Amino acid sequence: MIERIAILGTGLLGTSVGLGLRAAGFRGSITGWNRNPDHAQIALKMGALDSVAADALEAARASQVVLLSVPIYATLDFMEKLAPILGSEHLVTDVGSTKRLISEAAARHYNTPERAAFLPGHPMAGKERGGAELGDANLFRGAVWLFTDDPAAQRSPHSATLVKGWREWVGAMGSKTLDLDPARHDELVAWVSHLPQFVATALSALLEEEIGDAPELKDVGGRALREMTRLGASPYSMWRDIAYTNTEAVQAALEALEQRIAHLRENLRTPELRDEFERANRFRRE
Amino acid sequence: MIERIAILGTGLLGTSVGLGLRAAGFRGSITGWNRNPDHAQIALKMGALDSVAADALEAARASQVVLLSVPIYATLDFMEKLAPILGSEHLVTDVGSTKRLISEAAARHYNTPERAAFLPGHPMAGKERGGAELGDANLFRGAVWLFTDDPAAQRSPHSATLVKGWREWVGAMGSKTLDLDPARHDELVAWVSHLPQFVATALSALLEEEIGDAPELKDVGGRALREMTRLGASPYSMWRDIAYTNTEAVQAALEALEQRIAHLRENLRTPELRDEFERANRFRRE
Repeated sequence: MIERIAILGTGLLGTSVGLGLRAAGFRGSITGWNRNPDHAQIALKMGALDSVAADALEAARASQVVLLSVPIYATLDFMEKLAPILGSEHLVTDVGSTKRLISEAAARHYNTPERAAFLPGHPMAGKERGGAELGDANLFRGAVWLFTDDPAAQRSPHSATLVKGWREWVGAMGSKTLDLDPARHDELVAWVSHLPQFVATALSALLEEEIGDAPELKDVGGRALREMTRLGASPYSMWRDIAYTNTEAVQAALEALEQRIAHLRENLRTPELRDEFERANRFRRE
Repeated sequence: MIERIAILGTGLLGTSVGLGLRAAGFRGSITGWNRNPDHAQIALKMGALDSVAADALEAARASQVVLLSVPIYATLDFMEKLAPILGSEHLVTDVGSTKRLISEAAARHYNTPERAAFLPGHPMAGKERGGAELGDANLFRGAVWLFTDDPAAQRSPHSATLVKGWREWVGAMGSKTLDLDPARHDELVAWVSHLPQFVATALSALLEEEIGDAPELKDVGGRALREMTRLGASPYSMWRDIAYTNTEAVQAALEALEQRIAHLRENLRTPELRDEFERANRFRRE
């Protein structure tokens, strides 16, 4: 039974997990740490935490479940630092957007009978802007929370109980869980998450050059333009690590889209345009 | 003062105008015609019309303001047929998404002292699916309603009054009006409306091929994917005419985006990625 959780990184996701756990009825302790302690104080004031930790490693050691909710390279750093100081009484999990490197690190440092368990996780939820102040208890409601690499057999019975408990809390926050192989995960999210983001960034940057000096023209586009560029507001600080850790799959998806757009451009006046609209219609069919 | 309006084409836009006029307090008559009369009956039942016309040309002649809310080539057909049977007591206006061909037709057939006035219009509002049953009195609230070619000087004083009256009703339905030169209009909407649509179509069609056979994977993408592909549901029947009547501007916009995506793909691991995110962030800055 999980009674002590440490959230390392109280940005949008970490704060939302704290709020979501409370809303789902979690009554244990939630301590939080953030590189900039001011943001942990915001999460505390919002009720996502009941204490702010000065030392991340200390907070992790004193908890049963450690949630790493920091960018991917910071997650990898924490994984290395935490492995030697935690034991089989601990479960470490994360929310990183790519899983191959994290799963490899988990295999190196975790999931032996003496070591802590590591369960790589990835909630498919977020907002185009980050920060504790946007934290939302309902952020994960209706979302899919992906897990990769759940080698339950390699874990101690105690670890297995913590893993099961964490999965139940994820469900209680309103998410549906889905288990994927880490390589398949990274390939899939390149299509359904990274491709939409990078296209929105390219479209927004292009439009900034074309009409950025005439803000009244942005209004002309209406809802369609607002939606197609909403993700243009996403921060580089988060997407840099994704671009670095899933480069090949993202490149393949972007190149496929370039070819698809070129094909459509060459067929604006041919029956192929109808076929392409029909394919797109099928994707959106309920 | 406008007291009799004929709406030719009672799809999403025509029906929404009828509902919007009523909600804004229009107390005159609104008659509607549709190629498929069943759809006009739906608009009638929804309260968008107070009568269904069997003959479009008759209905136009009996009204003061004729709204053409049909695809672009059908609009051009109606413009030719209506010009000889209407006179300076009439105003014809439309909702077509490209304006160059329509403005040229207006210059050929309308806006002389003896002929009807024609005011090319384009409300920047819609939904990804069409049809009378989706009609919405609030569709135009907060939207920009573009007009091109308003050569008031060439019109009779009576026509000028009708034009002024129609502009006021557009404002009463909640839209902000903006006047543009027709060529500039078509170039602008290629960027802020047609480009987002064709990109969403290409992205949706590509994803249909990649993951269309695994519908559970669509859920994984969450809100970002849903938003970036919502317009994938848009009907070919409407976009065909746009592709045909604004081909060059749309091609230029699509080609610019292809280059932009390729540039981003080649720079996933360079500082240029940060610059591109910052440009995109600027476009979304309030």
